[in-house]
Amino acid sequence: MPSVKRIDHIAILVDDMEATLRFWRDALGMQVAGLQDVPAEAAQIAFMPTGGSEIELVRPTTEDSGLARYLQKRGPGMHHVCLEVDDIQGMLAQLKLHGVQLINEEPRLGPDGRKYAFVHPKSANGVMVELYELPG
Amino acid sequence: MPSVKRIDHIAILVDDMEATLRFWRDALGMQVAGLQDVPAEAAQIAFMPTGGSEIELVRPTTEDSGLARYLQKRGPGMHHVCLEVDDIQGMLAQLKLHGVQLINEEPRLGPDGRKYAFVHPKSANGVMVELYELPG
Repeated sequence: MPSVKRIDHIAILVDDMEATLRFWRDALGMQVAGLQDVPAEAAQIAFMPTGGSEIELVRPTTEDSGLARYLQKRGPGMHHVCLEVDDIQGMLAQLKLHGVQLINEEPRLGPDGRKYAFVHPKSANGVMVELYELPG
Repeated sequence: MPSVKRIDHIAILVDDMEATLRFWRDALGMQVAGLQDVPAEAAQIAFMPTGGSEIELVRPTTEDSGLARYLQKRGPGMHHVCLEVDDIQGMLAQLKLHGVQLINEEPRLGPDGRKYAFVHPKSANGVMVELYELPG
């Protein structure tokens, strides 16, 4: 049985990165391991590792991406939770058997070798859930 | 300096516990360590530990609590992220120095000895952030 191993990260959508970092980095004192432009996601992302998971601040850098439209519609706040699984192909098959609606029917491949897929929030009680299988 | 240690839990607001468990427990295969009525929070909570953190499904059991009103207004979905800190009193003082608005100016005491406080989402980019200090 494929299984969930841990919370990999929580992604938070932001419109003003510097203002947001004043809370997470300056006030809470979280370490920012990286602040990177990620053109593939049309976003700037701040990575803040904590206790084996990460909080990611995601700022859309274009106005027409899915993230940008989500931000325009809903405002800043939590966007998705990403769970690490041991076998993403098996997990997606298991989810389909349970009638779960997927955004990505097949795993997509990230530049670092991770495989990922999103579950549709309709099937997860309004929560956007991402699944990761990390390279071994 | 007080610091954040890890993500303790993510809380997800639900209106139908059984339907929601069909995704998290039955389809994803997450273990439910407890499914409890918590009268102090006017909620039924499903605790699902994973990798040192927890995902909590929270169903309001009255219609007039803050949680119930949040659910009526926004619908089901992610409600807050809880971070464990090593020194909550020191952390709240540090947040105040940075002008962060708090829902709880002083730590509150849970029945299990944990101390907790909520940061106002206005000061955290629209995210409801809870802080925990666990008994040593």
